[in-house]
Amino acid sequence: MARRLTTSVCIIGSGPSGLLLSQLLAQAGIASIVLDRRDRAYIEGRIRAGVLEQGTVDALEEAGVSARLHAEGLPHDGFDLAFDGDRHRIDLKGLTGRRVTVYGQTEVTRDLFEARMADGQDFLFNVSDVRPVDLKTAKPGVLCVQNGEEIEIRCDYVAGCDGFRGASRQAIPPDVLKTFERVYPFGWLGILVEKPPVHHELIYANHARGFALASMRSGTRSRYYLQCSLDDHVDNWSDDRFWDELRLRLGDETAAHLQTGPSFEKSIAPLRSFVAEPMRYGTLFLAGDAAHIVPPTGAKGLNLAVADIRLLSRALIAHYRDGTDTHLEAYSETVLRRVWKVERFSWQLSMLMHHFPDHSPFEARMQRAEFDYLASSEAASRAIAENYVGLPLEG
Amino acid sequence: MARRLTTSVCIIGSGPSGLLLSQLLAQAGIASIVLDRRDRAYIEGRIRAGVLEQGTVDALEEAGVSARLHAEGLPHDGFDLAFDGDRHRIDLKGLTGRRVTVYGQTEVTRDLFEARMADGQDFLFNVSDVRPVDLKTAKPGVLCVQNGEEIEIRCDYVAGCDGFRGASRQAIPPDVLKTFERVYPFGWLGILVEKPPVHHELIYANHARGFALASMRSGTRSRYYLQCSLDDHVDNWSDDRFWDELRLRLGDETAAHLQTGPSFEKSIAPLRSFVAEPMRYGTLFLAGDAAHIVPPTGAKGLNLAVADIRLLSRALIAHYRDGTDTHLEAYSETVLRRVWKVERFSWQLSMLMHHFPDHSPFEARMQRAEFDYLASSEAASRAIAENYVGLPLEG
Repeated sequence: MARRLTTSVCIIGSGPSGLLLSQLLAQAGIASIVLDRRDRAYIEGRIRAGVLEQGTVDALEEAGVSARLHAEGLPHDGFDLAFDGDRHRIDLKGLTGRRVTVYGQTEVTRDLFEARMADGQDFLFNVSDVRPVDLKTAKPGVLCVQNGEEIEIRCDYVAGCDGFRGASRQAIPPDVLKTFERVYPFGWLGILVEKPPVHHELIYANHARGFALASMRSGTRSRYYLQCSLDDHVDNWSDDRFWDELRLRLGDETAAHLQTGPSFEKSIAPLRSFVAEPMRYGTLFLAGDAAHIVPPTGAKGLNLAVADIRLLSRALIAHYRDGTDTHLEAYSETVLRRVWKVERFSWQLSMLMHHFPDHSPFEARMQRAEFDYLASSEAASRAIAENYVGLPLEG
Repeated sequence: MARRLTTSVCIIGSGPSGLLLSQLLAQAGIASIVLDRRDRAYIEGRIRAGVLEQGTVDALEEAGVSARLHAEGLPHDGFDLAFDGDRHRIDLKGLTGRRVTVYGQTEVTRDLFEARMADGQDFLFNVSDVRPVDLKTAKPGVLCVQNGEEIEIRCDYVAGCDGFRGASRQAIPPDVLKTFERVYPFGWLGILVEKPPVHHELIYANHARGFALASMRSGTRSRYYLQCSLDDHVDNWSDDRFWDELRLRLGDETAAHLQTGPSFEKSIAPLRSFVAEPMRYGTLFLAGDAAHIVPPTGAKGLNLAVADIRLLSRALIAHYRDGTDTHLEAYSETVLRRVWKVERFSWQLSMLMHHFPDHSPFEARMQRAEFDYLASSEAASRAIAENYVGLPLEG
């Protein structure tokens, strides 16, 4: 015998996208149920990027979850690009008047969970067999199983916030769904270490031995990455080997400031560009990684998801408050216009900053020429900067 | 029995590079001999691009050959990029404060020939078996044959201005010469027609059927191009077929203004990116197409050659007038820095504006996203504009 629940919006996935959506809807008095295959502890334990665009900070402010972000987040006015030892700073503040904030996605997720829990949000954790149904009808639903019990949630709308491997996108029939993908021929080996960062701003470094990124989560916690081959394994990387390789790729001058220590997280992630179209199917609306993946270069994943949610929440609120469906109708097209631009930037920065073993000598020189041109051109630097701080929400 | 000649600088090639160099050297009182495998009529008959950067106009002014250019050249303050019917104007004047001048390379060559002939320049036309020799010695030379007679020219320096298929670059030993190349999987089918242009500025159009360019030589003479396959042949293209295809690619709105007529030139050219390093070997200095080729998109070929010649002439004049060789020593490195940036731009604009049959669906969308981003970003448009009007000579 199945348990039956009803709500206005059924949100699949309780990562930052789903949580933020439930928060913004709750503020507007719209009920939702959030379900997830995992539980809160698991979700909060995931390590992700940590550079927030101003638009993302604005959204978290609007959502009333920015207190700790403002207390602990690190405003960054620029970042460095390095190419075989040559450095070029992108002066975000000077070029665009805006900045970014370093604050881990893990922290954003924690803040959102705190708020949703305090507000009494309905959650269903540890569910399996998630299946959106009747999406082309006026009473769609989501079926799932929790502790062996079948659950049927009936709602007006389904929000697919369940990431790249979630069930939502799969609910769109194959003859409707178009996907676009690029898999990069390398991965990122990342570590976390409880030491101050090597530099007060991020350094993206292209080196003949491969890409390196010197990043941070706070003034005392650093995040470093190394480009590695896709068949590499963390067991091949002792901390000592990691630090030695990082020093080589950052160069002596920078590496002189490197403070090393035991890593407390070490993992390899592949790099992928992916877009699914459309982002709406009947009453189902996709947001975030469920619809698109960017390579981590430039840290756009969370920011792009938050932009989706801002537009989706506004569209849903317009429906419930004003009876206006034009924003819901336009959602997929509006969001995808921006998605493709952000995909373009993440792809461009990835193509610029990594070592591509399969590049022809001409292509390798084009990459170097791109860096040299960028380093000599305020216009080209401003184009990078305006993407890095975040493109306008609609446009 | 060989004829022996002596001069200061032996210039191989009497295209615009060689002619301009001989003109600038002559102004400084430095003797040169210019030799070419062809004759003046053949060289003046070659059809080439016709968009001059301000720096190129400046160089022709300095050389005293700009009277007709100023009388007949068309200043252009912008140009259009089109993508499947959407148009975006690059406002060169507004974005950079500079403009370009439409004036055919054929006309530049004619003006330079006039000036050199009036000045009594030593030419050797219709020579064969051109061979630079003793380049690493203080008395290098160039050997060639004219009317069955062997000629030996002894000089201080050899300027290799003899184009992509010339003998100069081949004189650099294979273990010294490095080359970088990309051949594009299509060509340009071009026609000239004695009709006013379809639009007062250039239109570069990317269309699902392939690239098209609406260009001009004057207010009454138009130049149109269509992307075609590499194994295509002009015999396959009647004028009618050309106009029909051009209309499709330009779109109805633009094509409504198209004035057609019998073409008086029709040819197919491949697209190539090519760079040779170094551009100096002992007493041999390469300039223009002898060292580098750009695809015609953006019309950089002649402009790049003129920039080379400006730097080479200054370096040679510094040697003869001041006894300073630092500029000659730095020539290859200085010129190549700019060459790679211009190669980058020509490659970028080519990649943006052509239809690539081998692109993945993701890559095709990246190309469209690049156009959409460009159309929405002043910074990105300025970056295109500053390259189009010409990057600084040194830097």
